[in-house]
Amino acid sequence: MKALAQLGMVSENPSENQTTQTSLGEAKDYFVEKDGMRFAGAHLLVDLWGAQGLNDPVLIERALCEAAVAAKASILHSHFHHFLPSGGVSGVVVLAESHISIHTWPECQFAAVDIFMCGACDPADSLPVIEAAFRPARMAVDEQRRGRIA
Amino acid sequence: MKALAQLGMVSENPSENQTTQTSLGEAKDYFVEKDGMRFAGAHLLVDLWGAQGLNDPVLIERALCEAAVAAKASILHSHFHHFLPSGGVSGVVVLAESHISIHTWPECQFAAVDIFMCGACDPADSLPVIEAAFRPARMAVDEQRRGRIA
Repeated sequence: MKALAQLGMVSENPSENQTTQTSLGEAKDYFVEKDGMRFAGAHLLVDLWGAQGLNDPVLIERALCEAAVAAKASILHSHFHHFLPSGGVSGVVVLAESHISIHTWPECQFAAVDIFMCGACDPADSLPVIEAAFRPARMAVDEQRRGRIA
Repeated sequence: MKALAQLGMVSENPSENQTTQTSLGEAKDYFVEKDGMRFAGAHLLVDLWGAQGLNDPVLIERALCEAAVAAKASILHSHFHHFLPSGGVSGVVVLAESHISIHTWPECQFAAVDIFMCGACDPADSLPVIEAAFRPARMAVDEQRRGRIA
């Protein structure tokens, strides 16, 4: 967690369940218009194969937070869970613009990453950070436009 | 949050960022075999239209936790965020078997729910709880099999 202290994202008081409230000067959860289409948010389903570092929760949390920053998203909360003995990590970064999540299977060098962003943020801007952090042999990206109106 | 106290899921010590560690007697993050297919986990992308209660973080957290329990998943952590003035809610329940997340746009009566589960849990078992809680006029469900090997 030390690595994240520089980003101001480490708390000394972990807890398990919580609700917080934010008053945004400008509401960020608006629908998006792109390519003549109106939708709630762009959701990238990213499957990583032959990836590295998948049993390292500090590396993973830093990567996901940096991925959020790369897309100019606002981090509200993050939580990462390290499973033993497998070494797998599950984690989520809750954003003002939706979320980034990861689940890793280090024994298979596989990870499933979701990057879901509404508003002006483009989740594709997060991909170079994910690729650089985990150096996958193969990265499959599927874009789903959630809440598509037309 | 009072409603969740009965489920033993409320902490008095909220924080913003955290990492926890769990030693599972039996590792739960194994790949799944179903319909002659081997994959890491089943991920349902659920879009709700004409839905109710989307500006109520207590109702939403209870619904998502009950949805996890309905699929026999193990809840590790939950976090919900209430945006003002829109009333929208973003939240996630981290599971031993992956996660359930929600992002709501109450002004459009729209919500995007993700139910991602590995292991023996079937995310479809969560859908009746989601439908009963939010009473959507329309619910679109798309299943993605993440980490599909063959």
